[in-house]
Amino acid sequence: MDKILMGPQTLIYPMPVLLVGANVDDKPNFMAVAWSGIANGEPPMISVAIRHNRYTHRGIRQNLTFSVNVPSTDMVRETDYCGIISGSKVNKVEVCQFKVFYGILDNAPLIEQCPINLECKVVHILDLGSHSLIVGRIEETHISESYLTDGKPDVNKIKPLTYTTAPASQYQTLGEVIAKAFNIGKELKLIP
Amino acid sequence: MDKILMGPQTLIYPMPVLLVGANVDDKPNFMAVAWSGIANGEPPMISVAIRHNRYTHRGIRQNLTFSVNVPSTDMVRETDYCGIISGSKVNKVEVCQFKVFYGILDNAPLIEQCPINLECKVVHILDLGSHSLIVGRIEETHISESYLTDGKPDVNKIKPLTYTTAPASQYQTLGEVIAKAFNIGKELKLIP
Repeated sequence: MDKILMGPQTLIYPMPVLLVGANVDDKPNFMAVAWSGIANGEPPMISVAIRHNRYTHRGIRQNLTFSVNVPSTDMVRETDYCGIISGSKVNKVEVCQFKVFYGILDNAPLIEQCPINLECKVVHILDLGSHSLIVGRIEETHISESYLTDGKPDVNKIKPLTYTTAPASQYQTLGEVIAKAFNIGKELKLIP
Repeated sequence: MDKILMGPQTLIYPMPVLLVGANVDDKPNFMAVAWSGIANGEPPMISVAIRHNRYTHRGIRQNLTFSVNVPSTDMVRETDYCGIISGSKVNKVEVCQFKVFYGILDNAPLIEQCPINLECKVVHILDLGSHSLIVGRIEETHISESYLTDGKPDVNKIKPLTYTTAPASQYQTLGEVIAKAFNIGKELKLIP
């Protein structure tokens, strides 16, 4: 066996790149987040891990709502920008020219240019150390019609970004489809 | 604006594909998980969402430890198999011919063939409805030497899988690198 130990690591598999939004002091702000995950099926929930001192964190605590926006590859500059600089210093909406809209929640700002937008209500905040793990119930999902094929979201049009860090921090597109899920594994049952 | 409402949705962006392991009644078992996310930076933590009635869930509750194994594209059959069938019905380790080893924790089984393995100790279990959100502290990370380049994990060798569902449930590889993170966004600062 050729395994070596690397100590506790958080950054060694690909993660979806998302823009998390909140109104901070009543103004929309967005940050780039790679540390997120679906947290529950019924009802649908999502978790995001955010450092305590982040500006967006303040907004989420103020309203107990947030948004999750899925950017497309053509928004990689804006997405990265939202991960570099704090909303306490610049108006990111202005710099990135985001068209902001609101859905069924009054204070979870959504980005029109992102193909997919989730509106979330906070149900749990776990203080885990450097970060809060914020669990939100997904109240509504918006998708731009131009990213659908036959009425269904189409990943080939959405062109989401992934964040990888091995060996360097970078954004990658998705590659080829290699197998159907809940299907190709059936081939194995025939062997034993 | 061309947005349409889809109701609460959990499955519309790419997710990393992982094999979560636990000893159930002292025997190693693994399940495929797409609903996970890094939960904290310092100390490093990861969360996984698992349906209450899953066999692996029982093992995690028995030992309060679990593992996260990152499979490579060449393990797509085995990975999918671990997402189709329950460990209560078959010995997945045998069917998939996993070589199981243990690290610093006594009862978090690791898969030698997976390039990356995390050992985790449970720190929180949130019952959110259909699923438990299980938060684990990452105690150790193992990586196979053959997946390193100049001593660093290399995503081009690891070849991780992503799970996408739009329009169909499928596994995709990673594609091209389109930009450096914490870098390309700087271009925007020059514009306003």
